Amino acid sequence: MSDTPITILGISGSLRAGSYNTAALHAAAELLPPGVRLIQADISDIPLYNDDVRAKGLPASVERFRKQIAEADAILFSTPEYNYSIPGLLKNAIDWASRPPEQPFAGKAAAIMGASPGAVGTARAQYHLRQIGVFLDLKFLNKPEVMIGGAGDRFADGKLTHEPTREFIRTLLTALNDLALQLKQHKK
Amino acid sequence: MSDTPITILGISGSLRAGSYNTAALHAAAELLPPGVRLIQADISDIPLYNDDVRAKGLPASVERFRKQIAEADAILFSTPEYNYSIPGLLKNAIDWASRPPEQPFAGKAAAIMGASPGAVGTARAQYHLRQIGVFLDLKFLNKPEVMIGGAGDRFADGKLTHEPTREFIRTLLTALNDLALQLKQHKK
Amino acid sequence: MSDTPITILGISGSLRAGSYNTAALHAAAELLPPGVRLIQADISDIPLYNDDVRAKGLPASVERFRKQIAEADAILFSTPEYNYSIPGLLKNAIDWASRPPEQPFAGKAAAIMGASPGAVGTARAQYHLRQIGVFLDLKFLNKPEVMIGGAGDRFADGKLTHEPTREFIRTLLTALNDLALQLKQHKK
Amino acid sequence: MSDTPITILGISGSLRAGSYNTAALHAAAELLPPGVRLIQADISDIPLYNDDVRAKGLPASVERFRKQIAEADAILFSTPEYNYSIPGLLKNAIDWASRPPEQPFAGKAAAIMGASPGAVGTARAQYHLRQIGVFLDLKFLNKPEVMIGGAGDRFADGKLTHEPTREFIRTLLTALNDLALQLKQHKK
Repeated sequence: MSDTPITILGISGSLRAGSYNTAALHAAAELLPPGVRLIQADISDIPLYNDDVRAKGLPASVERFRKQIAEADAILFSTPEYNYSIPGLLKNAIDWASRPPEQPFAGKAAAIMGASPGAVGTARAQYHLRQIGVFLDLKFLNKPEVMIGGAGDRFADGKLTHEPTREFIRTLLTALNDLALQLKQHKK
Repeated sequence: MSDTPITILGISGSLRAGSYNTAALHAAAELLPPGVRLIQADISDIPLYNDDVRAKGLPASVERFRKQIAEADAILFSTPEYNYSIPGLLKNAIDWASRPPEQPFAGKAAAIMGASPGAVGTARAQYHLRQIGVFLDLKFLNKPEVMIGGAGDRFADGKLTHEPTREFIRTLLTALNDLALQLKQHKK
Repeated sequence: MSDTPITILGISGSLRAGSYNTAALHAAAELLPPGVRLIQADISDIPLYNDDVRAKGLPASVERFRKQIAEADAILFSTPEYNYSIPGLLKNAIDWASRPPEQPFAGKAAAIMGASPGAVGTARAQYHLRQIGVFLDLKFLNKPEVMIGGAGDRFADGKLTHEPTREFIRTLLTALNDLALQLKQHKK
Repeated sequence: MSDTPITILGISGSLRAGSYNTAALHAAAELLPPGVRLIQADISDIPLYNDDVRAKGLPASVERFRKQIAEADAILFSTPEYNYSIPGLLKNAIDWASRPPEQPFAGKAAAIMGASPGAVGTARAQYHLRQIGVFLDLKFLNKPEVMIGGAGDRFADGKLTHEPTREFIRTLLTALNDLALQLKQHKK
């Protein structure tokens, strides 16, 4: 299967420069299976969703984001939990990307990681994102569920240094790659 | 209890000029119990949440929104459902408002309305918002649950014209006022 | 692919003799793609879950149910909504089936139907079941989502008579069969 | 307010003799505010819900449970998480109790505790129970959320021995008592 290179689009739910979740995506980029590449989306310049604006034409930042989604085989969300759900800014980017004419998320392999300073580690946000994924027709992995609690001890100088967590992400990426290949094969 | 005037802050989850949900808030303003006033929040100029920005000081739009929440006795959300959850732009406003030093939603009475063209009428978004409300310590009414399906037939020229729906909103507002008064009394 | 016959295990969430949801499974049995068979589970004699009982050995009714799950390629739930979630009796059967040594649901294709007299049609129950499926590692179809509202008009004499709904279930079964075949192929 | 004694009905989601969650209710009984009593429900003999059975008359075990709910001022659930939701046996008891003619949970104060051997501690089950409570019109406390992880270290010989957890439950009970008194007062 090595002749089918897989592209993963990483989407961080945090805009903070020192974000643990963005750092987890950077770690993922170092842990990819052979033949897989990871591109990171930039959603920092996507405006608040307004259907009147959309009717006049998609903003350039949204067009760029939609194109990245369309070209990817798999989506990897890495997101904090804000107020027991996913950050509004991440949901806002999804809201723009999901609008007609075509819905670029449909049928893609997908997975979630989440890092947080606390113990619980983003579980509540992840189940909300999974429900959103039913509408988007994202094919989420059930397992592994990467919930990185106690992030303060696992990251240093903006890098994920905790070996077991890195190994866990490696397992996630292998499963995501497998699913993406399987979906690609089935589409042919 | 008529000597304790109640202020409700209405928050629409849609920025569209012709939004059904904003129109439902306008209808609510016409259906208030005596001694209650409804102010409508403007969240259209709140930027995407960024904790680095927050650390330097809250944007003026966020300060204004937080002040409106703090001064209100009750919160009335009126929101569409985007992708089986609440709109990102509404969640983003909540994310800004919920940050330290004080969390202005805590302990307020709250209720939800939702209008949509389809049949189901925003149920999925409303349960996500309720889970968010557990963290925010919003005291949501359990009933009535105002889910306005088939909105195309109930609104005309940007106004809610369907009498039974108006009556339903009146019932919601009475219950919200009762709860707000009860919480106010208990705080003394 | 017609040389790989697929077995679907139908599980009704209602024990009522005239249950719409059991009737929907009977309709499904008439609408199967070629080479697919549907067996209906009986969960009416499964006792309330008790881990002390389990430790002494699984009840015969549970052994039978687990065996049916293990031998199936796909699971088709057809369930009412009770109190904004799935019926306790359905969850109880799942709780028994999911216990060690092996977890028979893992990796199976799965889909949900739900019929109800009201308009909304079991949506809330279905998202709870999907979250349960993450733990069970069920591979749920995202679409179609079969939510049969207004069941009183679509069923007659214990049979699903509404043609568009029958067609909808046929679409579901085709998608479920495709997914089951795909997962089977991938396992080899 | 001391002349209005409050009755809390404790409902455990586990039938296991050595259940952490039942033990947490026993601990709660030792930590009650003055003038409050806690009665523990027995749901072990409630049959699987069957609407045909209900139509002929409620089983005695269900009548007893409904009467206990009706006579209580507040409900305290203490429940494990099974398969990312509440146990089926607990949901089944709720399903029976919620049926017409009257729905005894309506308007009662309510709170949730959950103990589990793992780290996360029943969070997913608790949010499902909260959604169920919207339909039942239970007035759930938002805070504190008692999620007792690592139960193996906090209980000994079937008793909750971990002092900070006992203190946490005491805080919950005080808040539950306050809410129950407030609702009682408002009803007059």
